[in-house]
Amino acid sequence: MKLLLEYDGTNYHGWQRQKNSRTIQEVLEEAISAITGEKIRVTGAGRTDAGVHAAGQVANFKTNTRIPVEKLPYAINSRLPDDIAVKGAWVAPEGFHARISAKAKVYSYTIYNAPFPSPLLRNYAYFFPLPLDVDAMKEAANHFVGAHDFSAFMATGSPVKSPVRQVNRLEIDRRQDLLIIEIEANGFLYNMVRIIAGTLVEVGLHKIEPGEVASIIRSGDRERAGKTLPPQGLCLLRVIY
Amino acid sequence: MKLLLEYDGTNYHGWQRQKNSRTIQEVLEEAISAITGEKIRVTGAGRTDAGVHAAGQVANFKTNTRIPVEKLPYAINSRLPDDIAVKGAWVAPEGFHARISAKAKVYSYTIYNAPFPSPLLRNYAYFFPLPLDVDAMKEAANHFVGAHDFSAFMATGSPVKSPVRQVNRLEIDRRQDLLIIEIEANGFLYNMVRIIAGTLVEVGLHKIEPGEVASIIRSGDRERAGKTLPPQGLCLLRVIY
Repeated sequence: MKLLLEYDGTNYHGWQRQKNSRTIQEVLEEAISAITGEKIRVTGAGRTDAGVHAAGQVANFKTNTRIPVEKLPYAINSRLPDDIAVKGAWVAPEGFHARISAKAKVYSYTIYNAPFPSPLLRNYAYFFPLPLDVDAMKEAANHFVGAHDFSAFMATGSPVKSPVRQVNRLEIDRRQDLLIIEIEANGFLYNMVRIIAGTLVEVGLHKIEPGEVASIIRSGDRERAGKTLPPQGLCLLRVIY
Repeated sequence: MKLLLEYDGTNYHGWQRQKNSRTIQEVLEEAISAITGEKIRVTGAGRTDAGVHAAGQVANFKTNTRIPVEKLPYAINSRLPDDIAVKGAWVAPEGFHARISAKAKVYSYTIYNAPFPSPLLRNYAYFFPLPLDVDAMKEAANHFVGAHDFSAFMATGSPVKSPVRQVNRLEIDRRQDLLIIEIEANGFLYNMVRIIAGTLVEVGLHKIEPGEVASIIRSGDRERAGKTLPPQGLCLLRVIY
């Protein structure tokens, strides 16, 4: 079974099941287990961190339930808290794996760029009050596109088989006080989007020149990239299969 | 002194000070009192209810503080929880009263109109899953514009000197799954926007014909208007002086 999910990550310790912490995966598994009467384990496309949101997470699980697939979202939602919702359910193709089968994922990182903080956006955007040169940020963004070793944009000490990822698209869009960074890639290293966003902010402040980004990528040096921005600006928008 | 305010009303019992309940007015007064060392009383332009938000509430208060007016937002914000923020401060004109001096106020009511609920919008929009005829709603909206006795669109038993209000503008805008109702009037009766929004939903369902709205207004009969929609969809957008 394949599920489309939206959640507000504010009150969770991320997607992945942990001891002694409430996670999306655990709450979802309990809800599905309760309605099917089976012991359910779900696999998510992206392991979002604490405070990170999803508008289009995808998960899969095995079940023998007789609940018709079109009724499943309503049934599961009736057991979920209101900060997690199933937005669609489908019978998954044979061998489908939410993460491994994914061709690409799209994340957004939202910056609230205005003089004073926004209470209404406090959990959904990173507040940054200094003026940003968006044109410079857009120029820098182009350097990320393509297949690169993104070691410089990975939390240090993360275990990873290969640090090479293919970025298909990186767009920056200013909508009044919001700066929305949207990035599509075939996969993401740990904290990759938050470090890329932090690096783009440095470019917007002219602390890093747009052309310097190519050399930071080549260096593989985490120290040369920008800060890891906080989780609340990050949202898993959709997964492409 | 005149303040521009934004707040997330989710965790408050509305604007107005109450015994035994946390309100925006009280929290704001405590913050300003703490930084000025005076006993501060603020007056708000709109008395938003529990769960109602403001992107542009205006408040005024008297002070002898020596804190420069341009530093005041930062000083007050340093004492406010992150669901309330001052977004601007000005020396108010002589005799300024945030509510009485207001020429008009603008509210939005947001409906999330999609098959499944949205966790990310659960505190900021009213979830309504059935299809709505937006063209019919737009036609009905025109009947509200103008000076009318809005008794049919007021919570029963509200004390009021005159139930006549002038609606300058009522617009309905569909943006993907969101339906945004924006209404500007010289003043609002108690629950007026939430009852107008509830009536427009009935029109969208063809339970009330667009042309019937004029007769509901004339009747002054609260029973004939729609339901009072829940508070989380409502937001005080701005106050016009």
